[in-house]
Amino acid sequence: MTAFKVGLLGHGNVGAAFETLLAERADAVAATTGLRPELSGVLTRSRGDFDEILAGSDLIVELMGGLDPAREYVLRAMAAGKHVVSANKQLLSQHGEELWAAAREHGVQLRFEGAVAGVIPVIRVLQESLAAAHIERIHGIVNGTTNYILSEMASNGVSYEEALAGAQALGYAEADPTDDVTGRDAAAKMAIIARLAFSTPVSLDQVRYEGIEHITADDMQYASDLGLGLKLIGTAERVGSGQISVRVHPAFLNAEHPLASIHGPFNAVTIESPAITEITLSGPGAGGPQTASAVLGDVISAMIPPASTAETTEALEIVEDVESAFYLYMEVADRPGVLAAVALLLGEEGASIKSVVQKGLGAKARLVMVVHPLLESRFFAAVDRIATLDFLRSRPRAIRVIEEEFL
Amino acid sequence: MTAFKVGLLGHGNVGAAFETLLAERADAVAATTGLRPELSGVLTRSRGDFDEILAGSDLIVELMGGLDPAREYVLRAMAAGKHVVSANKQLLSQHGEELWAAAREHGVQLRFEGAVAGVIPVIRVLQESLAAAHIERIHGIVNGTTNYILSEMASNGVSYEEALAGAQALGYAEADPTDDVTGRDAAAKMAIIARLAFSTPVSLDQVRYEGIEHITADDMQYASDLGLGLKLIGTAERVGSGQISVRVHPAFLNAEHPLASIHGPFNAVTIESPAITEITLSGPGAGGPQTASAVLGDVISAMIPPASTAETTEALEIVEDVESAFYLYMEVADRPGVLAAVALLLGEEGASIKSVVQKGLGAKARLVMVVHPLLESRFFAAVDRIATLDFLRSRPRAIRVIEEEFL
Repeated sequence: MTAFKVGLLGHGNVGAAFETLLAERADAVAATTGLRPELSGVLTRSRGDFDEILAGSDLIVELMGGLDPAREYVLRAMAAGKHVVSANKQLLSQHGEELWAAAREHGVQLRFEGAVAGVIPVIRVLQESLAAAHIERIHGIVNGTTNYILSEMASNGVSYEEALAGAQALGYAEADPTDDVTGRDAAAKMAIIARLAFSTPVSLDQVRYEGIEHITADDMQYASDLGLGLKLIGTAERVGSGQISVRVHPAFLNAEHPLASIHGPFNAVTIESPAITEITLSGPGAGGPQTASAVLGDVISAMIPPASTAETTEALEIVEDVESAFYLYMEVADRPGVLAAVALLLGEEGASIKSVVQKGLGAKARLVMVVHPLLESRFFAAVDRIATLDFLRSRPRAIRVIEEEFL
Repeated sequence: MTAFKVGLLGHGNVGAAFETLLAERADAVAATTGLRPELSGVLTRSRGDFDEILAGSDLIVELMGGLDPAREYVLRAMAAGKHVVSANKQLLSQHGEELWAAAREHGVQLRFEGAVAGVIPVIRVLQESLAAAHIERIHGIVNGTTNYILSEMASNGVSYEEALAGAQALGYAEADPTDDVTGRDAAAKMAIIARLAFSTPVSLDQVRYEGIEHITADDMQYASDLGLGLKLIGTAERVGSGQISVRVHPAFLNAEHPLASIHGPFNAVTIESPAITEITLSGPGAGGPQTASAVLGDVISAMIPPASTAETTEALEIVEDVESAFYLYMEVADRPGVLAAVALLLGEEGASIKSVVQKGLGAKARLVMVVHPLLESRFFAAVDRIATLDFLRSRPRAIRVIEEEFL
């Protein structure tokens, strides 16, 4: 199988995660694309030679961060006819027009999903799904560090300083958190989002931003008293004919707002447009593996022809009988021994009862149970047996319960 | 400017909305792609000739629904070298492999975002962002009709029959709601989702499904008592080595589950994968304009080279001074006249007070207000004047409030 050579610039948190993910998923990528991705070289401050890596690569992944020499390398790679995937929000929010023009000029792809909101596909959705949609407004929680800090302040009542220290201990905040807590990181992302949403030039220096350093426990208490969320929100919106506003600042939100329920180091973006009302995309914010996953998605998109649905590569068996927890609703005669009889039959089929509620009296007596997960065939065998019991006033009714804990 | 000819098959709800949207957005599409999209013809039962439309089109949009003659037309269009965009879930869930193979064979694009979950970009995310990701599980609310009915039962305590009648009156359910309420519509969508997520053949007849016709007000009461949501959930998941399960049934969910808060005629999908944890996509389910918007996104993707960021087409002014509601926090001396003095200054700058809370006593007295939206410059002018008042114990603190109602 032909190899597809990927040159990697930068080997920090995201770069290392990308190298690992690429190796892990190489077989799957080969099955999907017909090309086997291979790292052709890695450039760091201490090792690798850019010209050599460029000459041996079909595509360059730029994960160095910063403006120089990332800008020069990206431009040289595109001039050499290579596709580029970058997760560099500073670079794209400050030199985007120059880079996008170079990509058009040289007929190469410049993809940058990883630069904004980690694994949330906001760039792809704006550039492709909503290309030419009339977008009215985008709200985003696009910095996981500050969302984590504000979530901790809200749920544990700790001060900003305590929450920041906790975030640093967990690796959610860097030793120097300035870019995150001042809102500058979010501002770079909102500049990129606004450029794509409104097809108008927007650079980082045109985004007004304000951070979360001055938020106090009192503000959080106020939010809690009124059932509001307090988040660092990026906003890009049309404000008048021929005018837009792009800004980042702490803001209170109604509890019903889709962004109010985004907690911890998560990101989310809502996109409003008359044709679609509003869509919301949410998921983990920037983290090594998450951003690496977005980068790999971009790499694969550059490898395969657009919108080809690959042949199936698996022949997985589709099973019918799976484990599930169940709710079981029974209209029963109001007399002793009913619960024991039902429990016995459930137990014989391996069903373990999690909770029981008895409701109503006399002709309205009902027994409602939740049973722990078991194979559906066994659960339904128990229900069939229960249905034959003489104290049942109607056929028992079962509904599945999705129990797993999320996030 | 060169025209890009789009042949439209079908002119029902979605077809008509697509024709309208294409006309509305033709200028924007032309600015983005360099090609002006134009309808080359419309085929309905009573008008139009397929061969003539095909000959005059660069791309065919199939919005007829059903298997025949949609299948034949899509195959013939691809054999003629034309890209196809379809929103036909029946067709793709039953003849997908044949159609995708034909697309690969003829080197054309077959896009179908509109077939699943309206405007939510789940197809694009699975095929592109998460191509070659190891997906563990997908949960989806992929039928807006049933979600609307269950939401009404939950929030208003009405019976299934009453909620269905209400949905029909509002146009959320068809006169014959069988496909929706039995879970068959959701099953078709889950078959397509599972095929893409697991790269294994899955057709509609392999999906087990169960509908919502038997859900009662009692079940809803139980869910409400325990703080659970009750939704029609599609699940596609790995269950063992080489095995998957694809099914649709009503299920109880924890209130914290991302799908539990999806209300009304909305759709949402959560995708779980080790590398990304979980992402959630939500938005309006199938509706004419929403599905048409997904179709238009697919059409534009077929028109433009992948991942080119088009030149900016607008030169919108980025304004700094916008309207916002504000929270204003003041540490004040505990004496009469404080509120009146603050209110006077706010009023002079045009700020109207929405609510006021006075907290604490003596040296801890605080005044917290929310003011209705006004230009930020005027609000901050008021704050500057308030800051000079002698009863302020520290600089007033302001945080924006996002007030708009959503959904």
